Amino acid sequence: MRALALVCTLNPSPARSSSQHLAEQVMSEFDRHGVQGEIVRIADHDVRPGVEVDMGDGDAWPAIREKMLAADILLIATPIWLGHPSSLCQRVLERLDGELSETDDQGRPLVYGKVAAVAVVGNEDGAHKVSADLFQGLDDVGFSLAPGAVTYWVGEAMQGTDYQDLDETPETVASTTRALAANAVHLARLLADAPYPASS
Amino acid sequence: MRALALVCTLNPSPARSSSQHLAEQVMSEFDRHGVQGEIVRIADHDVRPGVEVDMGDGDAWPAIREKMLAADILLIATPIWLGHPSSLCQRVLERLDGELSETDDQGRPLVYGKVAAVAVVGNEDGAHKVSADLFQGLDDVGFSLAPGAVTYWVGEAMQGTDYQDLDETPETVASTTRALAANAVHLARLLADAPYPASS
Amino acid sequence: MRALALVCTLNPSPARSSSQHLAEQVMSEFDRHGVQGEIVRIADHDVRPGVEVDMGDGDAWPAIREKMLAADILLIATPIWLGHPSSLCQRVLERLDGELSETDDQGRPLVYGKVAAVAVVGNEDGAHKVSADLFQGLDDVGFSLAPGAVTYWVGEAMQGTDYQDLDETPETVASTTRALAANAVHLARLLADAPYPASS
Amino acid sequence: MRALALVCTLNPSPARSSSQHLAEQVMSEFDRHGVQGEIVRIADHDVRPGVEVDMGDGDAWPAIREKMLAADILLIATPIWLGHPSSLCQRVLERLDGELSETDDQGRPLVYGKVAAVAVVGNEDGAHKVSADLFQGLDDVGFSLAPGAVTYWVGEAMQGTDYQDLDETPETVASTTRALAANAVHLARLLADAPYPASS
Repeated sequence: MRALALVCTLNPSPARSSSQHLAEQVMSEFDRHGVQGEIVRIADHDVRPGVEVDMGDGDAWPAIREKMLAADILLIATPIWLGHPSSLCQRVLERLDGELSETDDQGRPLVYGKVAAVAVVGNEDGAHKVSADLFQGLDDVGFSLAPGAVTYWVGEAMQGTDYQDLDETPETVASTTRALAANAVHLARLLADAPYPASS
Repeated sequence: MRALALVCTLNPSPARSSSQHLAEQVMSEFDRHGVQGEIVRIADHDVRPGVEVDMGDGDAWPAIREKMLAADILLIATPIWLGHPSSLCQRVLERLDGELSETDDQGRPLVYGKVAAVAVVGNEDGAHKVSADLFQGLDDVGFSLAPGAVTYWVGEAMQGTDYQDLDETPETVASTTRALAANAVHLARLLADAPYPASS
Repeated sequence: MRALALVCTLNPSPARSSSQHLAEQVMSEFDRHGVQGEIVRIADHDVRPGVEVDMGDGDAWPAIREKMLAADILLIATPIWLGHPSSLCQRVLERLDGELSETDDQGRPLVYGKVAAVAVVGNEDGAHKVSADLFQGLDDVGFSLAPGAVTYWVGEAMQGTDYQDLDETPETVASTTRALAANAVHLARLLADAPYPASS
Repeated sequence: MRALALVCTLNPSPARSSSQHLAEQVMSEFDRHGVQGEIVRIADHDVRPGVEVDMGDGDAWPAIREKMLAADILLIATPIWLGHPSSLCQRVLERLDGELSETDDQGRPLVYGKVAAVAVVGNEDGAHKVSADLFQGLDDVGFSLAPGAVTYWVGEAMQGTDYQDLDETPETVASTTRALAANAVHLARLLADAPYPASS
């Protein structure tokens, strides 16, 4: 089993990133379940705007897409800006939209059978809405969602501390992350053994 | 296998209802897969406001909840009003919120292992947002989502024909409904045989 | 100048309510600007489901609607449930939808020229999304929005304290409430003197 | 009076664009009210990711921002992708977020007093949600919204025709566009003469 995390912070490496921090915590939990993970920070790559699987001309998405197609679980980690997923996160969704026309010889999208999960961080407010936007987009494209498919942290209204600067991870967040990983891995294993039926 | 559809039109029976019509189409597809279904129209029952599983005093939710707990698949069917799920649909979500504190002896919510799906109709616009709101609420509460967990119809911007008054069901909608049913049933069968792990 | 607050807590009086508490704070600020206010708690009234201005049969909305039509500023105060406006708040929106067919002799909706504002409270997360849902619904129906048309409080992710139980109102919330009131009153005064043009 | 339209199609010029087409129609209406307009297609410029008003290093936003600050009305035109504003539209919002720390000598954001409006196009579904996301982001940043601050077109569910390829503009869309322009110009004129009060 393999997991791929796409971290959608606006800042390229080596800047510190709260969404990367939370993605790493999810990947550690996946690892405890024997799932190998890789993290890709979108801002480090030249992912082109568009809704095709390959926009050509140096587009970095096709290489990332190969990792996604090789993974059983896709984790999208994003900060919240103005209450919404980051522009790089929306770009990832747009590129995943290209999968709607990529089907196997039985008419199933190539991402069918893969499980998606979401990690969201912000100074304050917006995690549920961001997960709603992502659950809908990811389900539309063909991913499955286990219960509790989001882990998140936001602070009190209008405050400014970053998740990565907390003294310690709140136990509520840690247990949510653990449950996310356990459920996603369980579902991914079931679907690996028993694919969805072909379209009729 | 059993499915329960909660239809959230604002109009009680015997008024005609587009969301009921689409729910019936989904239930017919479930039936083709050997899944017995029942449809409950929320507006016909006195479901009280609140976020507990039983608000007392003639509350109709506990009886509906028993049907929900006995089902493997929950379908929420709703019209779109001002771009949002109907107020009765939001009331159903609020009542489902009570499930967060209802766990089995291993700490799992009672709805874990159940699959949710969504049917949305409106004169125009709003189906993706309504499904986003519902996917997030249902996943938070403990349901799983198969790919393509929503079927829907809306007309062209600012037009006024109802789904139930179309001469025939568009083939795109019919095939979306078929895929929803096939995937939801597949996932429900997997989860019935292999429950999610207990919380650690 | 008059303001009407519609408080959409799920609990009828005399239960304490955080959304009522925040609504009262906004109304105090309106009062400082010479704007008389009245607060109506929707849960205390039998507002019927539907999208007409009068659903008949004991419907409490027409009387509330009269207050709304007499006011220059409408404040909607709502708790957050599962990340969304409460079911009673969505019901208010559905009833306001009936205004789309209520126009003056120049074809302008009766609510044109009125200013709307929003107050949102929850234990955690969701205020921006709730304000987005309400801004869109209220603007569609015909209200105008001044900058900073929402005041809100939510706690840190996954925490459980209520706004009404805080030792004191955070200064960030208080100053947001003050700015909301100052801007809404300013805009309402401008529009009272200079109505929007008739439809061409 | 001046208006600036930011067109957020994913495709750079000279590709045809439905969101550009609708933006042009809005600008024609502004022109009828004596408001001079300019259209900037974001995809033609190197607007950098980030939440500051100037991200340095060849960032194209500061020049666009000067046009925005010189305008009385800001129109955001965007396609719908997966039910959401385009990634370039979200990028514009992120850059506008930088305005929260840009205030005049009386503590008012520089964009206070400006009016925002939105134009949305898609093959099918999503316009209300996109306008909700934008209304909330734009209001948070400091813009005012007149009634009916969005014009839009989407086709019937799951269909594929583009707005720019319609034989003619539907009269419902045309009249919505006219009302948007009339109201936005009216509000912008009022606010130009009577600015919001300084923060207290």
